[in-house]
Amino acid sequence: MDLLWEIVQDKYNSRENRKYETLFTLANGYKGLRGALEFSKLGERGNFIAGIFDKNTAQVTEIVNCQDILGFNLYIEEELVDLDICEILNFTRKLNMKEGILSFQFEIKTPKGKIIKVASERFVSRNNVHRWAAKYLITPINFNGKILIENIIDGTITNNTLDPINTTKHFNVEELIDLKPGIALITSTIDKKIKIMEGTSLIGLNEEGNFLKERKFNKFGEKVRELYQIFAVKDNEYTIYKLGATYTSRDINCSIKEAFEKELKDFIYDGYEKEKDAHIKIWEKIWTNIDIKIKGDDLAQQGIRFNLFHLSSSAYEGDDKISIAAKGLHGEGYKGHVFWDTETFMLPFFIYTSPETAKALLMYRYNTLEGARKNAMLNGFKGAQFPWESADEGVEVTPKWGIDYLGNPVRIWTGDEEFHINSDITFAIWEYYRATNDEDFLKNYGLEIFLDTAKFWQSRVEYNKLKDRYEINNVIGPDEFHEHVNNNVYTNYLAKWSIKKSLELVEWIKNKDMSFFNNICIKLGLNNEDFKIWQDIQEKMYIPKSKDGRIIEQFEGYFDLKYIKITEYDENGMPVWPKDVELDKLGETQLIKQPDVIMLMLMLREEFDEDVRRENYKYYEERTMHKSSLSPSMYSIMGLSVGDSNNAYRYFIKAIMTDLNDNQGNTELGIHAANTGGAWQSVVFGFGGLSVDKDQRLNFNPWIPKQWNELSFNINWRKNIIKVTIKEDEVLFEASEPVEILVYNKCCKLEKDKVLSVKR
Amino acid sequence: MDLLWEIVQDKYNSRENRKYETLFTLANGYKGLRGALEFSKLGERGNFIAGIFDKNTAQVTEIVNCQDILGFNLYIEEELVDLDICEILNFTRKLNMKEGILSFQFEIKTPKGKIIKVASERFVSRNNVHRWAAKYLITPINFNGKILIENIIDGTITNNTLDPINTTKHFNVEELIDLKPGIALITSTIDKKIKIMEGTSLIGLNEEGNFLKERKFNKFGEKVRELYQIFAVKDNEYTIYKLGATYTSRDINCSIKEAFEKELKDFIYDGYEKEKDAHIKIWEKIWTNIDIKIKGDDLAQQGIRFNLFHLSSSAYEGDDKISIAAKGLHGEGYKGHVFWDTETFMLPFFIYTSPETAKALLMYRYNTLEGARKNAMLNGFKGAQFPWESADEGVEVTPKWGIDYLGNPVRIWTGDEEFHINSDITFAIWEYYRATNDEDFLKNYGLEIFLDTAKFWQSRVEYNKLKDRYEINNVIGPDEFHEHVNNNVYTNYLAKWSIKKSLELVEWIKNKDMSFFNNICIKLGLNNEDFKIWQDIQEKMYIPKSKDGRIIEQFEGYFDLKYIKITEYDENGMPVWPKDVELDKLGETQLIKQPDVIMLMLMLREEFDEDVRRENYKYYEERTMHKSSLSPSMYSIMGLSVGDSNNAYRYFIKAIMTDLNDNQGNTELGIHAANTGGAWQSVVFGFGGLSVDKDQRLNFNPWIPKQWNELSFNINWRKNIIKVTIKEDEVLFEASEPVEILVYNKCCKLEKDKVLSVKR
Repeated sequence: MDLLWEIVQDKYNSRENRKYETLFTLANGYKGLRGALEFSKLGERGNFIAGIFDKNTAQVTEIVNCQDILGFNLYIEEELVDLDICEILNFTRKLNMKEGILSFQFEIKTPKGKIIKVASERFVSRNNVHRWAAKYLITPINFNGKILIENIIDGTITNNTLDPINTTKHFNVEELIDLKPGIALITSTIDKKIKIMEGTSLIGLNEEGNFLKERKFNKFGEKVRELYQIFAVKDNEYTIYKLGATYTSRDINCSIKEAFEKELKDFIYDGYEKEKDAHIKIWEKIWTNIDIKIKGDDLAQQGIRFNLFHLSSSAYEGDDKISIAAKGLHGEGYKGHVFWDTETFMLPFFIYTSPETAKALLMYRYNTLEGARKNAMLNGFKGAQFPWESADEGVEVTPKWGIDYLGNPVRIWTGDEEFHINSDITFAIWEYYRATNDEDFLKNYGLEIFLDTAKFWQSRVEYNKLKDRYEINNVIGPDEFHEHVNNNVYTNYLAKWSIKKSLELVEWIKNKDMSFFNNICIKLGLNNEDFKIWQDIQEKMYIPKSKDGRIIEQFEGYFDLKYIKITEYDENGMPVWPKDVELDKLGETQLIKQPDVIMLMLMLREEFDEDVRRENYKYYEERTMHKSSLSPSMYSIMGLSVGDSNNAYRYFIKAIMTDLNDNQGNTELGIHAANTGGAWQSVVFGFGGLSVDKDQRLNFNPWIPKQWNELSFNINWRKNIIKVTIKEDEVLFEASEPVEILVYNKCCKLEKDKVLSVKR
Repeated sequence: MDLLWEIVQDKYNSRENRKYETLFTLANGYKGLRGALEFSKLGERGNFIAGIFDKNTAQVTEIVNCQDILGFNLYIEEELVDLDICEILNFTRKLNMKEGILSFQFEIKTPKGKIIKVASERFVSRNNVHRWAAKYLITPINFNGKILIENIIDGTITNNTLDPINTTKHFNVEELIDLKPGIALITSTIDKKIKIMEGTSLIGLNEEGNFLKERKFNKFGEKVRELYQIFAVKDNEYTIYKLGATYTSRDINCSIKEAFEKELKDFIYDGYEKEKDAHIKIWEKIWTNIDIKIKGDDLAQQGIRFNLFHLSSSAYEGDDKISIAAKGLHGEGYKGHVFWDTETFMLPFFIYTSPETAKALLMYRYNTLEGARKNAMLNGFKGAQFPWESADEGVEVTPKWGIDYLGNPVRIWTGDEEFHINSDITFAIWEYYRATNDEDFLKNYGLEIFLDTAKFWQSRVEYNKLKDRYEINNVIGPDEFHEHVNNNVYTNYLAKWSIKKSLELVEWIKNKDMSFFNNICIKLGLNNEDFKIWQDIQEKMYIPKSKDGRIIEQFEGYFDLKYIKITEYDENGMPVWPKDVELDKLGETQLIKQPDVIMLMLMLREEFDEDVRRENYKYYEERTMHKSSLSPSMYSIMGLSVGDSNNAYRYFIKAIMTDLNDNQGNTELGIHAANTGGAWQSVVFGFGGLSVDKDQRLNFNPWIPKQWNELSFNINWRKNIIKVTIKEDEVLFEASEPVEILVYNKCCKLEKDKVLSVKR
């Protein structure tokens, strides 16, 4: 196996279990199964099904950690095969990213001296999201004897076991079922009574046929199990397949029992290997679209694939009522909530590689518009106000209280003040439309979001009569060190942009389909009076600037704050808190958590000339603490766009290694999903130098680090697959359809399936 | 603390958790709480309530492992204080046998570097069996910060977790209750719906008063918890009391909720220290009756107390429908079943130190007579046939299948064939009556057992016309290596004895209370015809002997079996399987598991003269594998009674160290309760040389090993407390009432409260 496609764990240490559970999570957009080891009780099992949320007694609505389906125990006589009790003779675990398969192999010696070899692989099918499976190869090394094989589904799982104050059980166990053979467990969430049926069945085949004969079935409270006994012979290998199926009442309207039973029956009929092959074929197809090849830098190659693998695993096109959580389907961190992370950091990857999935993710926002309207109403505004943190309904689910850097309880204001999410979403719709020309989506779904958020902004902005300008006060921008600020540029600028774009869309739809326009005005309660006001707002929106107009002031008064020089950097080149900083008074300094003005300039690059971008980049970079995984990748892109390639590689490596090196210290809580998208952007928008200009043309300004021999990737531009290969002294392009692009600001025409070389 | 009163564990090793859980079990006859450490998840929690049995899907009815009440977690910030995860800086655990208190102290360092000291003590009250409590002293050593304190009751417990095939859950969780503060959990057994209510409450007191203020209550499926947060200051000690109460629907007819709530409320009102003091006072009283003092041999002193402690803890006088299981209230071994172990090995201790408890234990047999009658009926016999293994009803609960020494499934015949239990019980009744003169018991309860088992024997014996004798064929005697044997002497002899004694009792009751006699004859369906047959049976019962009549043949044909010489001994001086032995064909050899003929001669010593006893002792000892913990102590007694003091000390040490050294390898399953009684017998009947002669007089023939300076103990003989002190060259006696005894076969008169010295 090609090491560049693998993540390897070659030593077992129970203290690292939680981290590896995240790194080795397998997901298919529908379901995420943390990479827990069957043979250790230490760690944090996680079985998440996208869209299954519950509040019960928790602080806020959160993704439900469902019944655990990984339960698979081996007993030699009565001794449990347990990595934390037995002596480990050898151990390896591998994530094969090319095929989406997690495998391990170990040999252990029990306290009574029995040696057994266990090899296993597992996949969560991308061919059929309702299926997952594992295979176990068991070999007694130094004994003949009885081995017990136990298949368990555990309904005692709670959320937040690492946070004892907030530990919550989000479901009741409804039914323990004997599938004869096989077991199933139906749970039902507390609030919405969503039913979740998980079931598994073991198949043991060798040349004698089925060797799993002596079966015992039991119910233990909230656990259900089946147990087999085999009499194993030294050096013989016993192969056991475990096939699993999942159905929830979110998936279908009819009986989940019927759907589940058919699924598992069909799966058993198809067999493990057939489903595995189909799963691998899907991954092959996915990799054709998403892979990034970096020659000459194995770390970068392996690292970028790790990020692409998990980002791709986190979504699928089959459900338009779910989106990607800040921690993917990989852990309970941020409670499974959806942030601007999805639209701003992850979506570009899907737009340019898997537009159907991008559309489904945007449809999630459309399908949660009712919640957004509720938020606006509850806060005294009009239209639709998207929540800073979103779960299944679109209502605000940001916790009101958290813990600050010093461990003190602190009021969290983001849910009250971080309004920019509304423009982040409309910007993402625009970005999607620009790259796909999906007029149907724009007309039927995107437009309504544009108009209803414009209506929200209309109610939210404050008119300053004295200065004849519109202001947005008391907000939080992307830089969350500063709360309750007035006229954050990122917020104001994107609100202005979004309103302006809404007005353009009004003209567009009027021309296209007047009766549709009339209908939507009736639906949203809009008329020409509103559009006039929008026009006024977008013209007079206040954008604070420095006196010379070159440096944009992050918000009103930012320039007056205390400047603190960052002087020390950690071993990863990341800033260390300056000594004189008071962590509970960061708001009084110019230190920022992550790009804010720079973020704006990345999104609306065409509206800021290169010199302005360069000066702002320089100014803000030296004030940035990078206390978000969203930060480094963005700086790498902006740096490259203004000709500063000094830090780009360092930032890029920092980004792709965020989880592999656990450099935020919380990988155990789930993958840094936004960062995985940032990593992709860092390659395509940064090193690939891709941007879209005012004329909606693709621009490429590629640059690659010296140590790279070659960088290549594909993008999907309006169904045209463009392959980009950047070499030391040339850049090659190949498109599936003719297209005009700009390379290093020169216009080039790509002909269908013909390679074009541009000298660097 | 006096080391002779303590059992100390000075090193933590998770692999020893299960063993120490047994050694450190605290029990009060009503309830047994395994000595699990709150701060480790490894091991086998055990909370047993005497008399609570259930079958459900298990092989046979078994003692229920009830909901776990020990749950007490500490989190420093969010880090769990767990001995298996943290670095252990120091650790000690102690069982204070004098006071019945288990304590520990440790300092650990969490993965994040926080050091905390925790000291704790725990008791299961002997003052009020419904109460138990723990105290925790918590000191942050190197930090100030938040500590979470979690009190949990866990209703997910199953039986037989170490035996996965037989894992069974014996109760449903009925109710999770918030006591505000405090938590409770009501379960209900599967078969008989016995309700069990367990509840606990935390109290945190320091100079500021109650410091447990921020409370959170949760239900997690089958677990209930309360959580407190405290902000702890470095070097300050925080004292938390945990008070617990237990009630079951076996205990009372009215609402267990009311009884429980009153109990816990009263306990909280009384406070921890008051109950602890009362508990210690009871233990002081108990020790006055039961203590054995051995001067000059610390190992023997500590070891004998360990055995007395656990034996005394296993029973109390307050419930006459329960008895002591083979593993006490200390583990799930032998499924909580009651064997001949109680009557034959443990009861003498209670008869001579705590006659009220002895009576309650015998009443258990009376109260299960209906079950015994069922057994007889089902097996085609008459009268009452006591079960080889007994649970709550007296019906036979011996499993039909088990595992042999080679790990193969094997049919267990003891429940079908080990009939001697019936005479073991009547012998025990006689022994009790002889030592207590409790005529009320003999008349109202004992008599009925004698008569109804005699009726059973009447139907069970086979008359051999040819030889004009009665035989009992196809049986198992105490030596279980030999099954389906004919005319096992132990069985036949004691059956004969029991029938003869029954006839004597018939005469006795006729003289005493003719109408009572008539009534019992009506009740049991007896008349003079039966008594005539009994007379015939007891006269003509076949007792096989060697040709010269000196060596009793264990059963018919035993002498013809293969003699195998035992040549090797392990490090404890115990025999090792001879090399040419086939472990599945032990029945074809003369090797025996444990004393059988010798057992008989110990029980009916007065019927065999010393020479016969000596010859049989010599003959059988060299054929005994001691594959039962019941074996060594009995050989030590018989050896001493025939003047062989060579092995007595070795056997004695072997007996008292059975669990402390885990020399049967299964201490984790519970205490070897019969052996604890055997240890007492070994001292009193062996070294003390106590026997009762045909004239019902106490005989003493004391002998002590050279290394002992002094041995002393008390016995209760018909309410007369006789203190015996054996020194190097004299034996001292002191009695609370005048009595005539024989010392070294010489008659001595003891005057009230006057010390009598007899030269050795």
